[in-house]
Amino acid sequence: MTGPRYTPLVASLPSTVPFVGPETQERSRGRPFAARLGANESIFGPSPKAIEAMQAAAAEVWKYGDAQNHDLRQALAAHHGIGPGNIIVGEGIDGLLGYLTRLVVAEGDTVVTSNGAYPTFNYHVAGFGGVLHKVPYRGDHEDPEALIAKAVEVQPKLIYISNPDNPMGSHHPAETILKMIAAVPEGSLLILDEAYIDLAPEGTAPEIAPDDPRVIRMRTFSKGYGMAGARVGYAIAAPALITAFDKIRNHFGMCRTSQIGALAALRDQPWLEEVKARVAHARARLAEIAAANDLTALPSATNFVAIDCGADGDFARRVLAELTARDIFVRMPFVAPQDRCIRVSCGPDADLDAFAAALPEALEAARR
Amino acid sequence: MTGPRYTPLVASLPSTVPFVGPETQERSRGRPFAARLGANESIFGPSPKAIEAMQAAAAEVWKYGDAQNHDLRQALAAHHGIGPGNIIVGEGIDGLLGYLTRLVVAEGDTVVTSNGAYPTFNYHVAGFGGVLHKVPYRGDHEDPEALIAKAVEVQPKLIYISNPDNPMGSHHPAETILKMIAAVPEGSLLILDEAYIDLAPEGTAPEIAPDDPRVIRMRTFSKGYGMAGARVGYAIAAPALITAFDKIRNHFGMCRTSQIGALAALRDQPWLEEVKARVAHARARLAEIAAANDLTALPSATNFVAIDCGADGDFARRVLAELTARDIFVRMPFVAPQDRCIRVSCGPDADLDAFAAALPEALEAARR
Repeated sequence: MTGPRYTPLVASLPSTVPFVGPETQERSRGRPFAARLGANESIFGPSPKAIEAMQAAAAEVWKYGDAQNHDLRQALAAHHGIGPGNIIVGEGIDGLLGYLTRLVVAEGDTVVTSNGAYPTFNYHVAGFGGVLHKVPYRGDHEDPEALIAKAVEVQPKLIYISNPDNPMGSHHPAETILKMIAAVPEGSLLILDEAYIDLAPEGTAPEIAPDDPRVIRMRTFSKGYGMAGARVGYAIAAPALITAFDKIRNHFGMCRTSQIGALAALRDQPWLEEVKARVAHARARLAEIAAANDLTALPSATNFVAIDCGADGDFARRVLAELTARDIFVRMPFVAPQDRCIRVSCGPDADLDAFAAALPEALEAARR
Repeated sequence: MTGPRYTPLVASLPSTVPFVGPETQERSRGRPFAARLGANESIFGPSPKAIEAMQAAAAEVWKYGDAQNHDLRQALAAHHGIGPGNIIVGEGIDGLLGYLTRLVVAEGDTVVTSNGAYPTFNYHVAGFGGVLHKVPYRGDHEDPEALIAKAVEVQPKLIYISNPDNPMGSHHPAETILKMIAAVPEGSLLILDEAYIDLAPEGTAPEIAPDDPRVIRMRTFSKGYGMAGARVGYAIAAPALITAFDKIRNHFGMCRTSQIGALAALRDQPWLEEVKARVAHARARLAEIAAANDLTALPSATNFVAIDCGADGDFARRVLAELTARDIFVRMPFVAPQDRCIRVSCGPDADLDAFAAALPEALEAARR
């Protein structure tokens, strides 16, 4: 008796995971983290109204969720001033990136992204047999011109950019993104990952005609709205692309409670404003903590701050290990030269106090 | 400007959905259903302890769920007396069927199932370019011998059977399934969909060595546990197959609140016993309602009852339409001769009262 016969593609895939979760680390460490600042979750939490709505909906979880995500799509359409036919709701941006990759990437198809950009996207591309072409960051920014130049060269099915950027926290103004969209080669689709857009300065989100076939924008309730565990993302694109998801998606894949929670969260824009203010405060605080340790906090348009540890990746990895040993969960960029930084999520003062207390010791230990 | 270039496979796929949800129907009807008896949801609801656990967890939904589903897998392993390495947790059986199909089915690969069995599985197979070979039911049962005979003929990657069966509610005893497993051809994998097993009589679930490479069992919290909207399913299989899911699954795809709710539900086995008793009562009640209308309720090992409307599929479709017009949501099998039936979910007396009141009128209208 042998096992099942996997597809040749699956047989060739490595058994890697894009991220090791904090719970996995806690189990291997044998004790919990004191501050959970590594996954850019919103420790400020979701809107109290969203919590209330989810609690009220808990007893009705015997019902499958609405396969069309109708109410949430209607509300999102009104919120953005577009049609519900321009919106697909899915199981987080991760789920939507998986579906989108499956829609367009067959084995051997090319995809363009930045070296050091979102690894879960790369995981999906590899998982469908796509061939990744990576361009370097320019400074601490993804480089729209280099991405487009590479796209003109390799004519990819997909081009990926996040704005604001993860893991560096940098951003481009709307005009730069609009210029990029105008240069997308015929037959390529630009993925504009706007996971952190709710926390970016005015003028970061471009106005895009929702029917523009060259671009799909990804949004999420995981960051500003503080509902990472609910798994609610959405994309805005031309109706033909939106309906294509219906050919392959898990139609009843959305958690009903999450649908209801996201709707309540969207309706509570004052809470999002409150979170923005708290994030701004935490960013400033993280910059102070960095400065007090003779380190540099990079400017951030997100709910996290990349802190330049002032040396190379090996040093930053040692700092990260020492922080972990002191019960502080943080992450860091994967590739050089961005990996000179550690990446710290915004959070309430108590969490940042724990980070501030651990950092000097961690730096000292890393320097030994 | 044209849109993205879809894969040839995706371009060839129809834009069908496996099921039209009740909310979609309510919107097109312009009014809500009075009784929601069509999707085999558990109207008796989840364990009160699961509700409580989800309510308590709502405020912590800012955290991503544990990518390894560790606590739930440990508890399931203890519950089944197997190792956690034999268990994969996913976004409902629908999600797991999608992943499994992707693992083994490349374009042109063959798959064997029954004509009239679970359409969402067929949707996934078609979605990855698989070629379905269907064998007829034998009476109102899926036919293990015919499935194996077809498998021996076409050497499929996957063979699908549900036990108990959906949509007929019939079941095979454990010995029949064990005999089937023993006959699975080398290189084929049997999917044993046990979504309804919690509601089946003793002796339906076979003892299978969890490391047996010929079979993967699918279980869910959607039916007996009453948590369809939470999207928690799991599969039991050999460790090599379990770890293969890690190559492609959405690692952070599970809703955190659902993970916590499922764990609490699993721990409340007395609630499951209570649900079983209520389901048994409802099955008997549905049989009485059928008999009072000179119809025959088929024996059921599930939380629904197939009611033979006594004529052909066209007649049953008219009955269904007339029930829908009277605000009763039910569904029915898709293919002949099973489509002589309508399929009615178990529920509290109030829901069955509504069905009982509507059925005579619906039958009369259908006969006109």
